[in-house]
Amino acid sequence: MKNFDFHNPTHILFGKGRIADLNEHVPVDAKVLIIYGGGSAERTGVLGQVRAALTGRTLVEFGGIEPNPHYATTLNAIQVINDNDITFLLAVGGGSVIDATKFIAAAALYDGDPWEILTSGGSNIKAAMPFGTVLTLPATGSEMNSGAVITDPDKVAKLAFRSPYCYPLFSVLDPEITYTLPARQVANGVVDSFVHIVEQYLTYPSAAYVQDGFAESMLRTLIKLGPKALETPEDYDIRANLMWIATLALNGLIGAGVPQDWASHMIGHEITALNNTDHARTLAVVLPSLMNDQREHKHDKLLQYASNVWGINEGSDDVRIDAAIMATRAFFEKLGIKTRLSDYDIGAPEIERIITDLKAHGMTALGERHDISPTDVRRILEASL
Amino acid sequence: MKNFDFHNPTHILFGKGRIADLNEHVPVDAKVLIIYGGGSAERTGVLGQVRAALTGRTLVEFGGIEPNPHYATTLNAIQVINDNDITFLLAVGGGSVIDATKFIAAAALYDGDPWEILTSGGSNIKAAMPFGTVLTLPATGSEMNSGAVITDPDKVAKLAFRSPYCYPLFSVLDPEITYTLPARQVANGVVDSFVHIVEQYLTYPSAAYVQDGFAESMLRTLIKLGPKALETPEDYDIRANLMWIATLALNGLIGAGVPQDWASHMIGHEITALNNTDHARTLAVVLPSLMNDQREHKHDKLLQYASNVWGINEGSDDVRIDAAIMATRAFFEKLGIKTRLSDYDIGAPEIERIITDLKAHGMTALGERHDISPTDVRRILEASL
Repeated sequence: MKNFDFHNPTHILFGKGRIADLNEHVPVDAKVLIIYGGGSAERTGVLGQVRAALTGRTLVEFGGIEPNPHYATTLNAIQVINDNDITFLLAVGGGSVIDATKFIAAAALYDGDPWEILTSGGSNIKAAMPFGTVLTLPATGSEMNSGAVITDPDKVAKLAFRSPYCYPLFSVLDPEITYTLPARQVANGVVDSFVHIVEQYLTYPSAAYVQDGFAESMLRTLIKLGPKALETPEDYDIRANLMWIATLALNGLIGAGVPQDWASHMIGHEITALNNTDHARTLAVVLPSLMNDQREHKHDKLLQYASNVWGINEGSDDVRIDAAIMATRAFFEKLGIKTRLSDYDIGAPEIERIITDLKAHGMTALGERHDISPTDVRRILEASL
Repeated sequence: MKNFDFHNPTHILFGKGRIADLNEHVPVDAKVLIIYGGGSAERTGVLGQVRAALTGRTLVEFGGIEPNPHYATTLNAIQVINDNDITFLLAVGGGSVIDATKFIAAAALYDGDPWEILTSGGSNIKAAMPFGTVLTLPATGSEMNSGAVITDPDKVAKLAFRSPYCYPLFSVLDPEITYTLPARQVANGVVDSFVHIVEQYLTYPSAAYVQDGFAESMLRTLIKLGPKALETPEDYDIRANLMWIATLALNGLIGAGVPQDWASHMIGHEITALNNTDHARTLAVVLPSLMNDQREHKHDKLLQYASNVWGINEGSDDVRIDAAIMATRAFFEKLGIKTRLSDYDIGAPEIERIITDLKAHGMTALGERHDISPTDVRRILEASL
């Protein structure tokens, strides 16, 4: 096991009816900016619950955060904060809204060009406004970590940052408010959680039996519950487990003390920046191809994954590894998520653009060994056409 | 899954050489009281490492915290704090030292008779001094939770409290400093961790698949690594996994959203208060007998435990449950820990005293259903003679 720090101060309020508890967690004298995305937050009644819980406080609302939130939009939110002397931010939405809120919280107090936050990866953040979240879409884990990703479509750039100042003070996780999510978003969330776990697990053995056991347990549960969540959307226990897994998949717990990959995410980000394909869908395309391509490097962990996650124990090493990769692809497809680049109108010319963009963003040494080059990425993408 | 709050702000510094990082986590202008137990902290060089890391700060030392720390000793520490204008506490030791430090941190700022903290279960704590810990004995999980247990031998009382003010700011977990622990303490720590997990797992099904999966994974790892830790004390990865499990077993994670038992702990506390038997040993006596006695109430989870923890899948329900209980008892014995009351010089008269003390401390409705009465406890203890 490697040395690690684990420090996650976010307070999770989990369960039915917990939005009402905002009243205890947002200061009574706060001037609150409620940040949200599209119309669903209003339509589903979540914004109504939030307003009711915050009765007595000054509330200003800022909607319109896009999926893969845009840099320009966050700058508009900062203007609203300054115009209204806002003291507290509340994100109501999924990962995009929460990511945008983290950036807004840091950029509002940043002395300089906020773009520098992104080019520095967040290392130059020295303060952030206090903020909480009400999670409506379990997927990214942003509700209990300190990282975020912001997109600038003009620059074809999707850049990540993190900072210890960017943990939410609290996050409300009410599984019941996920009942009305479109199947597409539920499936995306399951795949996003799955790949988050895999990126911290499927590397090389590091004698981190605790972390491996947690990862395998969550993967098995996603495989079992993911399809059921689509069949019976109002099964509370299924939604509760999926919601809690999405959070635990990327809150630092299973990544503590182990090597991490993240190549699929970095490649996937470029695909999204290129043609706005859903984040989770880019992962479902890249991961199986990357597993196959990196089967030498990931050999021991692929066999462990085959056995402990999929119960595949028969045949030669290669047969078991093939079966595990095939099972992974079939799981994504069962959730209604296509796993080939051609399913998303991406061909050879777009692959060249992705390679160019990866290089431009410094992503030239990916993977747990920092040895996946642009040439390797081209091969991985060509195999997933 | 039940509603839950999860909020654990303790910063974990895990790995080799991390004691040196105290320098970054204890304020440079602090007047530090280093609180420890017996001579081993000095003998093993841990106190030396701590002093070196804290160079430049005013250091006062307070040794002599007992196993099952005594109320009177904590009052002496508070006197030292007041006499020396101490501003920061650093616990260097195992659960007893950390528990004592939590109580000292709260009692030093308590306006009234500190005994009230214990009789209120900690609910009247409104502040505590800042404190960190250097863990030398993985077992109780106290390094990453807000609870503690204090004993008053004169009153034959061992009382627990918890408070959100009593989380350590940080805890240093260096597996290498556990190499020199006596085998007895290593075995105790494994059993203590094991029973902590079981008390939050072996109740009744609550569709908490995540928590169940984490619990089962940690139990399997303890079963595999516990005996090896005694055979090869300087195997870093074994010690690292055991240390991290001891912490995760009682930091709120696997207990979030599930029913909890704690009957074995409450009964065990009275045994320790009676004749000072090691805490873990009292658990190794009570748990197997309680599992057997409560086999109706715990039926479904006992079968799940048999299958997922021990791989026992053959035979009738009763056969599998018997086999799982027998395997549990054999595991404790393999670690060198006896599992019968008679092994600890406890007979029928002492059982009566334990029952009397449980009643005196209000422990008359134990277990996940609050229906284990003193009469039930008598039967459980008589079966473990």
